Formats: sequence, structure tokens, C-alpha cells
Amino acid sequence: MKHSYFDWAATTKTSEKALQTFNEVTQRFWHNPSGSYSDSEAASAFLKEQRIMTAELLNVDFQEIIYTSGATEANALILNSLLWKKIKKEVLFNSLEHDSILQHAQFLRHCGFSVTDLKINKGYFELDKLRRKLSSETQLVTLLLVSNIFGTVQDVENCSKLIREFEKQSDTEIHFHCDATQAIGKTEFNLKELGIDSATFSAHKFQGPKGVGFLYLKNRNIKNLSSGGGQEMGFRGGTENIASIAAMNVALQESLSEFKSNNTKAFLLRGILERNLKTIPSVTFLSPSINDSSKKVVPQIFCFSVNNIPSEVLVRLMDDRGFALSSASACSANASFKKSRVYLESGFSATQASGAIRVSFGPSTTESEIINLTSAIGQEVSKQTTLLRRK
Amino acid sequence: MKHSYFDWAATTKTSEKALQTFNEVTQRFWHNPSGSYSDSEAASAFLKEQRIMTAELLNVDFQEIIYTSGATEANALILNSLLWKKIKKEVLFNSLEHDSILQHAQFLRHCGFSVTDLKINKGYFELDKLRRKLSSETQLVTLLLVSNIFGTVQDVENCSKLIREFEKQSDTEIHFHCDATQAIGKTEFNLKELGIDSATFSAHKFQGPKGVGFLYLKNRNIKNLSSGGGQEMGFRGGTENIASIAAMNVALQESLSEFKSNNTKAFLLRGILERNLKTIPSVTFLSPSINDSSKKVVPQIFCFSVNNIPSEVLVRLMDDRGFALSSASACSANASFKKSRVYLESGFSATQASGAIRVSFGPSTTESEIINLTSAIGQEVSKQTTLLRRK
Repeated sequence: MKHSYFDWAATTKTSEKALQTFNEVTQRFWHNPSGSYSDSEAASAFLKEQRIMTAELLNVDFQEIIYTSGATEANALILNSLLWKKIKKEVLFNSLEHDSILQHAQFLRHCGFSVTDLKINKGYFELDKLRRKLSSETQLVTLLLVSNIFGTVQDVENCSKLIREFEKQSDTEIHFHCDATQAIGKTEFNLKELGIDSATFSAHKFQGPKGVGFLYLKNRNIKNLSSGGGQEMGFRGGTENIASIAAMNVALQESLSEFKSNNTKAFLLRGILERNLKTIPSVTFLSPSINDSSKKVVPQIFCFSVNNIPSEVLVRLMDDRGFALSSASACSANASFKKSRVYLESGFSATQASGAIRVSFGPSTTESEIINLTSAIGQEVSKQTTLLRRK
Repeated sequence: MKHSYFDWAATTKTSEKALQTFNEVTQRFWHNPSGSYSDSEAASAFLKEQRIMTAELLNVDFQEIIYTSGATEANALILNSLLWKKIKKEVLFNSLEHDSILQHAQFLRHCGFSVTDLKINKGYFELDKLRRKLSSETQLVTLLLVSNIFGTVQDVENCSKLIREFEKQSDTEIHFHCDATQAIGKTEFNLKELGIDSATFSAHKFQGPKGVGFLYLKNRNIKNLSSGGGQEMGFRGGTENIASIAAMNVALQESLSEFKSNNTKAFLLRGILERNLKTIPSVTFLSPSINDSSKKVVPQIFCFSVNNIPSEVLVRLMDDRGFALSSASACSANASFKKSRVYLESGFSATQASGAIRVSFGPSTTESEIINLTSAIGQEVSKQTTLLRRK
């Protein structure tokens, strides 16, 4: 059975054009860019063109782009770089972050850092909590741009202003890192204006291939634990995966150039999704509604909870009906851990957490898929509720 | 101009079958294996099949295979895991190692480890040097299986026996790590019999795609700095790059199944290479000859030096004649550093180091390519020598 796919936030299918580019580049620029013969130099020149392309698409300098195997590695590069610090102080996390950041806490504590989780509220990081926690002890603050769970867009720009202001007043230096993995194609942003020191991206979230991503590194005052073979300006070792990088750029270009039309459509679909789900008894919205103009969200990620039906059960039942949904942060194998944590810390009840479902969609999702989805959820919820009453 | 490629040790072109598999898997098993709907489960099951396949090809347990973005990342995983140690003691490196290992020295020292470089001799790690250096302080020893510079095969098995014996006597635990990146398709080995705790591999060295590799992890008494999303049994985070993994397995299977016939041919080609180079005045062999039965080498990697012609110059001149050669460890952007070091520490003179050229070839290299190569080297050396005399 062909499934209607509603787990785009977990991963996407590589676009045809990106895959085609992968094939072409694999055949043509496969030489090692570190050699000193002409084929190597051609590969190296092509890689530089790609770096300029990534940078231009994001309106930054090409020397600020460090290619990696994905956002997980790029996040680790930033967090691990703390280990070079002579004096270990404080790192400010929050439970909205992806596990590729949160799971570092144990290690950083082991190395002598104090790791503090800033409180979040209904899917949002709060500026005020940051203001109260910033101190001369703070060495790094992380904040994702778009929550992979709630689709909430965080106020990175104002956090940045707060941090920069604090730095000036207290004569400290704080690295402000932003995991922007869910942002491409879902919200407009300007890396320069965000005022961050670094940001991370994964190609497979925007229809590029898996196993490739990049780090935007504005602040060069960090280094990797090892420069390895010295590639990526010494920031990341390993023979460059040029074919995947070129394929990622194709997907990045497609995603950004089609942003406006895709986004208009996504808001329409989100409207239908919300309206239809609202008619189902026992459904509670965990993500803010797009009608709430005080909250900034991406339309493509929506989280809701069904009372009395554990999300794993509903995901199974919906799977049988041909719909692929997520019961948690599905780009994680630590699902249950993540789940209990982010919902509870966001102020939702244990019951709401237990019934939490994430719907995420993309450019090729159709109106009828959304209508069929909500109708199937309605039927299944009604069926399960009747069964529960009989018990 | 189409070049004759003699830099296979730096990287290889992805095999047609591997690329075809990449395409098929990208289209079919693109869902995130961490989801709990049927397409995810199919991806997860396919990934498990792939892990079993890798393991069976190498005659190990499938739970001992951890997929990574390549050997650089896999080497870093092992070295960084030392940071969990409560007491920091000694790490034994040697200058034959790839930069992805050597470049860790500075960081490990920063963290309180003592890093000692064991002396090497003409491309070989010496058991005796290890015996004298092993102590209750030793926490990790690294030794590559095949030198990317000299093609020398190291006596990993006896090093391992020495280490295990020492562990018993002194009641210590030493992690013995082996970078086996150059070994696949060039020498026969049995991971179990090597007696190592871990080994690393990169697909692009054996005609698999770039950006993928794996860690063989026998000794589970290590952990990554972070488990990230919990993938790869908690040893490596990041959405799994299943298409590249499957493509790597195709290349691995091709490489291993064709090993015998490829190897027979490679010895023939190496014989011609050595015989022809020997007739060129001012050529010195830095790699052992295959005729020296006391030395174990892979036939596909051969290093020699031309007196009075800097290797960068000869590589350029040969490039103009249509031959791609390496003047150093060409899978590294730290080429000059690496070069001066490994040759000198191996007991060669500065002049020999300065003229060092690496020829590396692969399954599709032909006899006539080798003959044309050596003939072109002969002509170029003669021309340059004449020019030098005139000065």
C-alpha cells in the first residue's frame, strides 16, 4: 500500500534533480581535491564553486560554510570545541533542542562544565529565562530556529541581541549556536541578521541526500578536536563528499526558490488540518494555531494530542490506513526519552504527552491527502473511543 | 586529456554497480528508520540486512559494525572516547598513521594525555619499540594495517598478541585500534584474528561512495562523546545514510570477491613497475620491493624517490603527460607536513623525502598504463637531469 507521508520533519525523499546531480558529479568530479594533478584541481575548483553557491543561497561568505556529514556532526563540532577552553564554565541548553545537542550534557558535565536547561513554555524558548540566566559563567548558549516537535519558530534574533548586549556589559564572550535543521524551506531567515555565531543544517530535511549537511561558522574562535586531513579549512577532516554536496545545493536552491509558493500552499493546508482536527472530540492542539498571530510557527509541522489513545497506538492504526505519522521526534532513536521530556517541560500534562502526534508535510503534499488524513484520524478516534467506553 | 590514474590510494571512482544501488535505495528505502510506521520499519529492516551483510563479508558479528561518514570520523570516535577516562594516561601513536589520527595529538595533550610517537623504520612499525614502551600507563595503541604512503603491511596480529600478553601480566586494559582504511581489496586479513579492539574503513577507498565508512567495534568498553539521536546502537548519531551504506556493501562485496584475481594481476603490474623504474638512474625505492620476501607489502601502493627533482615538480610534469600521481599522502590537505615527517621518521634522507612519489593503482589498471607510466617517468627524469646539468 502506498502511504500518504506525514513525517517530512523526520526525513524527505531526495529530489529527482538532486539525485541526478549526485550521479553526474559522482562520475565527473570523483578525484580527491587534495591531489596536485589537473583532475584533482578540477574537483577542488568545483568544490569551491559549490561552497560559493551554498553561501550565496544563504547570503553569507563562502568561507563561513563548513561541509559535514549532517547537522548531528555539525552540532557536535560546536559543542566539542568547548573542550579547548582552559576554564570550564556554563552551557545553556533547553529541552526544545534535538538530541544531537541534548545528549552532550552528560559528557560536558563529565568534563567539568555546568549544563543548565532553560525552561521552555508551550514550544517556545523564553527570552526572559535567558536574561536571568546569562552570567559571566556563560560560555555557550544554544537555541534551535524551528522546533522539530512543535514547529514553533524561536526568537533567535532577540536572544542574540540580548547575548551581544550582555557580552558588552560584562566583557565576556559567549558562543551563540543555532540548530537551523528544520528551517530551510519552512521559514524565511537571514543568517547574518540572526546575529548567531554558528548554525547547522542537514540536506535530507529539504530533499537533499542523507549523510551531508553543513555548519555556518561566523565566529572562527572555535576549533575542532582534530583537523584530521585538514579539509574544510581545517575545521573538518575527511575526503570531501563532493557529489552529495552538489546534490544538497540543488535541493537547497529548489527549496529556497520555491519557498514563497510552497509556503502559501502550506498555510492553506495547515488551515484545513487545524479546522478538521478541531472538529474531532478529544483532540488538543499542542502546537500553536496559525490563527494565533502572536505566535510564530512554520505551517508544515503540527503537533496535537488525542486524549486516551497512546500515540504509538494511533500511529499504528493510521499506518494500517495508509498514513505515515510520527509519535515523537522521529529523527531520533531515543524517542520515548525525548517525548516525555519535551512535552512535560513545555507545560503539557503527562496525558497530553502520551497522546502526542506530529503531522509534518512538504511541498508535494496535497489538499486531498490532508482531508483524507483528518477524516481517517476522526474515524479512528471515534472507533477507539467507542471501544474504550465498552471496556 | 584523459589521464591514467595512479592515485587509487587517495580515492577511487564509485563502481557502476555501487552507484546503481545508491540510486535504487535512495528511491526505495528513504524513510527514517526511527519511525514506527511500515515504511520506516522497512528501512530499518533493510539497514539491518545491510549490517549483517557487512559483518558477514568481514566474518564478524553484525553488532560490531557501526556505520559512520568514513574512517576519519570513525578514528575520531575511538580517540575521543578516551576523554571519558577518569585518569588520563598514555597513548601510543606512530608517524605512519593517517592525519586523522596524528592530528589528535595536540588535543589529547591539551586534555592531559601523554602522547608518544613510537619510532618506525623504512615504512614499518617495530614490535620491539612497542614492547619497550608498553607500560601500566598505556591506555591506547594505534597501528594502521596498510601504510597509505609505503604500502607496507604492518604486523598487527603480533602487536596484538604482545599487548594482550602485557595486559594479562600487568592487569591493565589497553585499547588497540587499527586504521584499516587501505586494506580492503589490497591484502587479505581476518579482523578476529588480528586481535584488535576496533578498526576503521572508508568506502571511497574501495570504489564505494564518499561520505560513508564504518567502525568495527569489538570492544564495547568505549562510548562516543554523545549518542546523538541514538542511532547505530548509541555509538553514532545522525539519520542513517542507508543508500550509501548499501552502495558501500556492493563495492565491498565486489572488492573482496575479486580479491584473488585482482591481486595476482596487481603483483604482475608491480613487478613491471619495479623492473622498469629500476632502470631509471636516480630512482630510489622507498617502498620495499615485492621481491624481498622478508617484507610484507600490498602490490598496489609503491613509493619511490627521484634524486634532484622535487616531487611536486615531477607530479606536475607527469600531469602534463597525462598521468595522475601523488607527491605525498594525497588524501590529506596537510600534505607537506605529513610528507616531511613520515619519510624522515622512517629513516629516509631529506633529499629522498623531497623527491618522494607515490604510485597507487587498482583493479582496472592495465599493463600498458604501467609501461607508459614508467617510460614517461624515464623520459622526464632524463630531460630534467640534462636541464639540471646545463645550469
